[in-house]
Amino acid sequence: MSRAEMKSLPRGLTAAVFRGLFLARIVVKFGGTSVANVERIRRAARHVKREVDAGNQVAVVVSAMSGKTNELVGWVNDSSPLHDAREYDTVVASGEQVTAGLMAIVLSEMGIPSRSFSGWQVPIKTDDAHGAARITEIDPTELNKRMGDGWVPVITGFQGVAPSGRITTLGRGGSDTSAVAVAAAVKADRCDIYTDVDGVYTTDPRITPRARRLSKISFEEMLEMASLGAKVLMIRSVELAMAHKVRLLVRSTFDDPDAPQLAPDGTPGVPGTLVCDEDEIMEKQIVSGVTLARGEAKITLRDVKDKPGVAAAVFGALADESIVVDMIVQNVSDDGSLTDITFTVPDSEYDKAVHTIEAARANVEFGKISSSKGGAKISVIGVGMRSHAGVAASMFKALADKGINIQLITTSEIKTSVLIDDEYAELAVRALHTYYGLDKEDA
Amino acid sequence: MSRAEMKSLPRGLTAAVFRGLFLARIVVKFGGTSVANVERIRRAARHVKREVDAGNQVAVVVSAMSGKTNELVGWVNDSSPLHDAREYDTVVASGEQVTAGLMAIVLSEMGIPSRSFSGWQVPIKTDDAHGAARITEIDPTELNKRMGDGWVPVITGFQGVAPSGRITTLGRGGSDTSAVAVAAAVKADRCDIYTDVDGVYTTDPRITPRARRLSKISFEEMLEMASLGAKVLMIRSVELAMAHKVRLLVRSTFDDPDAPQLAPDGTPGVPGTLVCDEDEIMEKQIVSGVTLARGEAKITLRDVKDKPGVAAAVFGALADESIVVDMIVQNVSDDGSLTDITFTVPDSEYDKAVHTIEAARANVEFGKISSSKGGAKISVIGVGMRSHAGVAASMFKALADKGINIQLITTSEIKTSVLIDDEYAELAVRALHTYYGLDKEDA
Repeated sequence: MSRAEMKSLPRGLTAAVFRGLFLARIVVKFGGTSVANVERIRRAARHVKREVDAGNQVAVVVSAMSGKTNELVGWVNDSSPLHDAREYDTVVASGEQVTAGLMAIVLSEMGIPSRSFSGWQVPIKTDDAHGAARITEIDPTELNKRMGDGWVPVITGFQGVAPSGRITTLGRGGSDTSAVAVAAAVKADRCDIYTDVDGVYTTDPRITPRARRLSKISFEEMLEMASLGAKVLMIRSVELAMAHKVRLLVRSTFDDPDAPQLAPDGTPGVPGTLVCDEDEIMEKQIVSGVTLARGEAKITLRDVKDKPGVAAAVFGALADESIVVDMIVQNVSDDGSLTDITFTVPDSEYDKAVHTIEAARANVEFGKISSSKGGAKISVIGVGMRSHAGVAASMFKALADKGINIQLITTSEIKTSVLIDDEYAELAVRALHTYYGLDKEDA
Repeated sequence: MSRAEMKSLPRGLTAAVFRGLFLARIVVKFGGTSVANVERIRRAARHVKREVDAGNQVAVVVSAMSGKTNELVGWVNDSSPLHDAREYDTVVASGEQVTAGLMAIVLSEMGIPSRSFSGWQVPIKTDDAHGAARITEIDPTELNKRMGDGWVPVITGFQGVAPSGRITTLGRGGSDTSAVAVAAAVKADRCDIYTDVDGVYTTDPRITPRARRLSKISFEEMLEMASLGAKVLMIRSVELAMAHKVRLLVRSTFDDPDAPQLAPDGTPGVPGTLVCDEDEIMEKQIVSGVTLARGEAKITLRDVKDKPGVAAAVFGALADESIVVDMIVQNVSDDGSLTDITFTVPDSEYDKAVHTIEAARANVEFGKISSSKGGAKISVIGVGMRSHAGVAASMFKALADKGINIQLITTSEIKTSVLIDDEYAELAVRALHTYYGLDKEDA
C-alpha cells in the first residue's frame, strides 16, 4: 500500500496498517443499563463478538449493573454520613468487579478467550483522592499481551489503585474516563461507548422530532454539548479523549448486535456518532447543535462599587461554599463608579447562593439584590462559528422574530448562550434548530 | 506475677501476660446473618466495641450479607453453567468486600480506628484451586502493626489471592476458616465466631427442650458434632483450629452487646461455647452430645465373594462417582467364602449409588442387593469414652429398653453411631440424652 493510498484511509485504519495488520484495536465500554442483568450482559457480549469476528482486537470496560452503585452508596451513607472515603471506595468498587467477571464468563462461553481485570490488577494507577481519584498511569503490558494473543480483557471501569495499595474510585461517570484512559494506554484506534441512546443529536429529540443524529462531532463541540445537558458523555472523559486524541464512538447497546453496521445516513459504515478531531470532519456545520438547560436561577447585584477585586470577592465567596456559577455578566458602568453584576446558578443552589451573597456584604459594597429562579439557557454550538461572523447576531434575530426576550448573553469561541424565560424554552430550541438548517429532511 | 500464679490463669490470658500486657488478642468473625444489613452490622460492631473497651486487641473477619453470595452465584450460573472458576471467584468475592468496608465505617463512627482489608491486601495467600482454595500463608505484619497501634482491622472472609495475583475463594463456609487462619497468624488468644445460635448444644433443642448449652467442648468432639449435622461450625475450620490450637468461642450475635458477659451457667464469664483443647476441660463428660442425621440410605450387597480387593472395588467405584459413603460395615463370613457388605449414603445419592454398584458387577461378584432409604443415624459423642468401657453396650441397652431395633453399628474412639428406623429418631435422641445425664436441670 502506497503512502498516498494510506492517506486516503480513515484515520484509525491507518494506525492499524502501520501495525502491519489490517485490523483495528477497539476499547468498548458498556454503561450500567447495558449490563443491568445477565441477559443484557449477553447482548452486550454479542456486540463484542461482532467486532472480534471482524478481525479487531478488543478490550472491554464495564460499569456496575444499573442501580447497584446507588444501592452501595446508600449502604455507605446509612453506615455513617461521615465515612472514610477509602472505605466508600472499597464498598462501591465491588459493583464493577461483579460485571467484569460475568462479562468474561459470557464471552468465554461464546468462544472468545477472556479474563477480567480489576483496576488494581491491570494496574490502573491513580492518585489518592479517594472518591474522585485521577488516573496517573495505566500499565498496558498485560493488556497488550492479551490482545495480541487474541484475548479480550474485561476491565472494571470507575476504579483504580492508589499508591497506598487501596482501591480508589474516579467519581460518578468514571467508567467513561476509564475506557478513554485504557484506550489511550493501549493506543486504540477507537473507544466505543455503548449507552442507552444511539448517538449525539442536534438537540433533544423530546423537544423536536426534527432532531437529527450527528454522524460526527468534534471534541470541542462535544465538550460544550456535554456541559450543557446532553448527558451522553461525561465532560471529563471527553476532555481526556481530546487530550489523547482518542476517537469516541457513541452508540446504542440496544441495536441488533448482528445487524449490518450502518452510518446515520443509512449507508454501510460506522453507526452512532463519532466524536473526533475537527480535522476529521470534512464539511463543518456553522452550528452543530442547540442545547437547553432548565432551572437556571439568575441573581443580579445592583449598584456594585466598580473597583478592582469586587468580582473576586463575590465569586470567591460562592466558590468557598462550593456553589458552581454558570453564566457571569458584568457591564461597564456608565460613570465608572457603579455597575451591575449578574450570574446564574442551578435552582437547587439558589437559596444558598443568595444567603452567601448577603453574608458577603461586609466585603462587597452593593445595593439591592434582584433575583429569580427557573430560567432557561439556550445555546447554539459549532466549531464553524470561529470562521463565520454574525452567528450571535443571527441567533438574536431568530429569537426576536418569535417575540422571545433575551435576559442574558454569554459567548465563547464556539458557543453562544442566552438566558430566556422558561415558557419560551421549547419554542426557542425549535426555532433555532430550523433556522440553522439542522432539521431532519423527512420530519 | 510468679510462674505458679501464671499457671493458674486461663490459657489465653497467660499468653497475654507473656506479651507484657494484661489483655487478650481476639479475632472476631461475623457470619452472613450477623451482617445482613446496616442495622445488623451496627449491632455486630457494638460487640467489637465491648471487647475493645475491655482493653482487648481485636481483628474482625466478615462474611457477605446473607443471601448475597447466593445471588452472585446465581448470576454466575446464569452467565454460563461451565464458567471459569477464576471469574466465579472474582464475582463471588465481591460480597465480603462490601461488608468489610461497611463494618470499618461503622466502627470508625463509634470512635474505633478501623480499616478494611481485602484478602489480597493482607495478603492472605492461597493455592490456585479457585472456588475451593486452601490458605497457604498469611502475612501478619500489617495486621499486627495495626492492632498494636489500637486499630481494628476488618478482613474479608472466604477469600485470598493466588500466586497468579487473582482472587480466590475458599468454598462455602470459608469465612470460619479465614477467621481461624487469621487468628493463628496473629497468635490470637481466642477466635470468637458470632452466629445465629448461642453455642453448641448437647443435642438439637428442637428435638428435646432438655438440650443444654455446653460451656466447653473439645476440638475432637466438635469435629464429630460438626460432621454429624450440628451446623454451627464448618468441619474445616475446626480442623484448622485444632491443628493450630486456636480456641474458638461460638456465641450469638443477637445477645445484647452491652449486657454483662455471663457463662452458660449464669455466672460472670465467657458466654457461648468454648471449643478448646481437651486439657482445658476439667471435668470430662463421658458423653458430651447426642446427634441425629436423617435421610441415610442403606445398601447391602449379599453374598459377596470374600477375597482381597473386594471392598476396594466396591468403594472405589463409588468414589469415582464422587459418592460420599458414610457408615461401612462388613462382617466376617461364616465359612470364609461369602460375606455381606453394608454401607450408607445420603438419600439424595441413593439412586446413583445403586446404579453404580450394579454397573460394578463385572468386577465384583455378589448376589442380590437389598436396600432402603430414609434411615436415621444416632450418635453419642464424648472424649470420656476413651477411658470408660461399656459406653456402646449401655447405648444399645438404652435403645432396647425403648424397643428400638438397631440396624447398623459403627464406632470410633470418641463416638458410637447406630442406624435405626426414622420413626424412632426423636424418641432415641431423647432417651439417650436423659440416659447420659445431659438433660437441663430445670426442664
